[in-house]
Amino acid sequence: MISSLRALGAVIAVLGFGALPAMADDPVEEATVASLEEWVSFLRMPNVTKQSTADIRANADWIEATFQRYGYEARQLEDGETPMVYAAWPDQLPGRKTILFYAHMDGQAVHPEEWDQESPWSPVLKTFEDGEWKPLPLERLLSGEAAPDDRLFARSAADDKAPILMLLAAMNALKAEGLEPAVNIKILLDSHEEGGPPTLGDVVKRNADLLAADAVIMLDGPMHISNRPTVVYGHRGGAGFELTVYGARTELHSGHYGNYSPNPAQLLASLLSTFKDDCGRVTVEGFYDGVVFDEETQAAFASVPDDEAAINKRIGIAEADCVGQTYQEAINYPSFNIAGLKAADVGASRRTIIPESATAAIGMRTVPATPPERLLALVRAHIEAQGYHLVDGEPTEEERMTYPRLASMSGGRGSKALQTPLSAPVGKWIVASLTETFGEAPVRIPLMGGSVPTSGLLSLGAPIMLLPLVNADNNQHAANENMRIGNYYTGVQSLHGLFLTPFEVGTETESN
Amino acid sequence: MISSLRALGAVIAVLGFGALPAMADDPVEEATVASLEEWVSFLRMPNVTKQSTADIRANADWIEATFQRYGYEARQLEDGETPMVYAAWPDQLPGRKTILFYAHMDGQAVHPEEWDQESPWSPVLKTFEDGEWKPLPLERLLSGEAAPDDRLFARSAADDKAPILMLLAAMNALKAEGLEPAVNIKILLDSHEEGGPPTLGDVVKRNADLLAADAVIMLDGPMHISNRPTVVYGHRGGAGFELTVYGARTELHSGHYGNYSPNPAQLLASLLSTFKDDCGRVTVEGFYDGVVFDEETQAAFASVPDDEAAINKRIGIAEADCVGQTYQEAINYPSFNIAGLKAADVGASRRTIIPESATAAIGMRTVPATPPERLLALVRAHIEAQGYHLVDGEPTEEERMTYPRLASMSGGRGSKALQTPLSAPVGKWIVASLTETFGEAPVRIPLMGGSVPTSGLLSLGAPIMLLPLVNADNNQHAANENMRIGNYYTGVQSLHGLFLTPFEVGTETESN
Repeated sequence: MISSLRALGAVIAVLGFGALPAMADDPVEEATVASLEEWVSFLRMPNVTKQSTADIRANADWIEATFQRYGYEARQLEDGETPMVYAAWPDQLPGRKTILFYAHMDGQAVHPEEWDQESPWSPVLKTFEDGEWKPLPLERLLSGEAAPDDRLFARSAADDKAPILMLLAAMNALKAEGLEPAVNIKILLDSHEEGGPPTLGDVVKRNADLLAADAVIMLDGPMHISNRPTVVYGHRGGAGFELTVYGARTELHSGHYGNYSPNPAQLLASLLSTFKDDCGRVTVEGFYDGVVFDEETQAAFASVPDDEAAINKRIGIAEADCVGQTYQEAINYPSFNIAGLKAADVGASRRTIIPESATAAIGMRTVPATPPERLLALVRAHIEAQGYHLVDGEPTEEERMTYPRLASMSGGRGSKALQTPLSAPVGKWIVASLTETFGEAPVRIPLMGGSVPTSGLLSLGAPIMLLPLVNADNNQHAANENMRIGNYYTGVQSLHGLFLTPFEVGTETESN
Repeated sequence: MISSLRALGAVIAVLGFGALPAMADDPVEEATVASLEEWVSFLRMPNVTKQSTADIRANADWIEATFQRYGYEARQLEDGETPMVYAAWPDQLPGRKTILFYAHMDGQAVHPEEWDQESPWSPVLKTFEDGEWKPLPLERLLSGEAAPDDRLFARSAADDKAPILMLLAAMNALKAEGLEPAVNIKILLDSHEEGGPPTLGDVVKRNADLLAADAVIMLDGPMHISNRPTVVYGHRGGAGFELTVYGARTELHSGHYGNYSPNPAQLLASLLSTFKDDCGRVTVEGFYDGVVFDEETQAAFASVPDDEAAINKRIGIAEADCVGQTYQEAINYPSFNIAGLKAADVGASRRTIIPESATAAIGMRTVPATPPERLLALVRAHIEAQGYHLVDGEPTEEERMTYPRLASMSGGRGSKALQTPLSAPVGKWIVASLTETFGEAPVRIPLMGGSVPTSGLLSLGAPIMLLPLVNADNNQHAANENMRIGNYYTGVQSLHGLFLTPFEVGTETESN
């Protein structure tokens, strides 16, 4: 079977990045095309959990019914108002290793007026021509005639409804081929990934036996910008807080008190300036302690086909910070990021005052060697070392009269980073399968910069990997979210290949 | 006459800061009480020039009619939609020096919901009892029975309608006494001080002969916090601008780009931190050059009855910045103040992004030795010395790809500081008169921290002084603006005394 799969892979490798000629005798492509109508239907369903539990319940009902209609096991896992969905290949055989695939049905809120189409819930096929995205008849997509570079625009087109339909299409292809998968296929479809209470951990614990697996594959996040098949071994964690520096009790007239009453915006600026050097490296003592890149990791950094000059041009900067030698190395360090600043007003509402306080929203990203609790403690110690007395919320009158420098840190909860070793068998299995399917090794990313909710899955005790299947420039979370059609096709191929590749050995996952 | 005035002054000095017993035989007090009803009527008239030119025209009509009704000269000086008002004692004799008194009829916009009364235009008399302001019948004010510490709450109660009625009352007292003033009294009442186009300069130039004077006295701004009679020799100027630092072309995901793409909020913080030392002193080279305090000025600083510990307690700070040894010295230096900061969002709307830019609203205050143009040029040079390329507005693509550090300065217009020498005859005249009226020397403030629009009056070529008559804690520009009743009474006494004090000699004014 492997050899026939290898042959199929070679054909698909040609297909995936070129034209998509009608090949009526390719069951994977047939199943892919057949799934497009369901993908479009699914995208017509609003899915913002925070805004409507009825909407998300309808999404869960749709998924359950659709998977059942094709003969797969599917049922809802109750989670208060908003069920998750469990689905599976009908036969789970003890002789096969079990893979739990994770994706999510919910999407980020929308501002419809920012979209270049009637509604984020009315999918539109578009092609890029003369410098702009032009609509095409949807029929072109449904008949399998869309070009790889065409895109379907809708909320969750990429993040993260496409992978759900890719799973269905890949399973349907197996059925059409009369093949049994080489692994037990389980699927968990989250309804709380983009908002609402993070209930994944509870649902996983309550259904531990049902979801038990030898490895978890998260189908979320973007592929490498090159659109080459991508395997991601982990993700950074996070630790956010708000830092507020206090001045006088109320706003003061800048004429009557300028030069006399300390300006909290000035103090905040000076305090923040002590966190980084001119080149963007964090200067908080111990911040990077424990971050070491072994040879395998360095080799992986080097093998990612990044083009820093192209990245700089795309985002519009002359020079990157110098936290690492490369983009990959940079995002494998913990980061300290000012996500927002606020003191009184700027622009038309500016007034001639000294603000009463100034706040910075800080988002740190952590790596396995630098857990959030440790970074938060280091930051706290650093602030105190600059002469600040840290208070909880607004200072009391006594604190105001006692301490020349007052600040508060609020929030501060963290989420864990996760990294599966590059040498772990689960990674080798995915790499081997993708290499076979596409005829070349995938891009291996040791740690992606963002965060995904793997912590809810840790109780399964299985190694976790990320297999992103959507284009990096999908406008995730923003207006005009879109999915590149070529990536939809190659996504199904990736999953179909994985289903047919036996997974033989145990693994280990490292996280903090 | 001087000796009779001196005797009257002694009586008033007792009155001014203690109870206000009915003294039917005191013409100044009688005229003061008689003016209270007109003050209240005047405060019922909305006066936000920016919001309604019809409103402010009604204010001008009212002033013109009221001064005329008492037999004074009064007429409107056309200024497009919103006339100013000129008024004068009927006889202008060549043998007397001429004093132009300036006040303004317009007020700042209001947020009625923030006021503890039905409307900012429905004046309420209040007394402070058991830790709060409690309403009293308005009749108590009108009958002259309000206590000195009671206050009238309304928009412009203090800033700046009270001085207009004080002028009327002081003139009426002279008439009742059958006295001629020792100076020619001219009055100019501005309608654009708090907003709308600053037309004062044009109106003054178009009416140069009418307004010609030997000295200008601005009846604006607060008295010393002690409520002792106060003479102010000048004010700081201003120079505001917005400083924006640019990052990547758009907001970026802080996970995917944190550590790689420079964070403009971090850069802005670091840049701002270079503007001041830990103690609040500006570190921009040359910023304080030319600021020297001569012996007379230092003596004036020392004689102001400030209590820095009390100021600190009132505003709620443990320690002041160390620009200067005292509050007075601090505000006689130019200042650099961050009036606002903004980058993306903090609080509930915070997102996990790297902002695309970060802006600081900067308000500088200037002194005569440090003109705004010079400070702006120094700031610009300082920013460039930190490695920044300054652009006009949004950077071009070419600028983004060329310069690692990009910033813009927008705005930057300045207003002039003004200082009349402490030795100028006009100051001596006011000090002598107030000393005679109240039996003790007034507080002499070399330079007040805020700014007033003296530049429009400079073309008259006369020295300009400020004679503030309202309580410092009047909530000027804010909700619950109020005028302390005792200050209203002493204000009329101050003006009545000035009207009767001959002004003999020429003077000089220094400004930038």
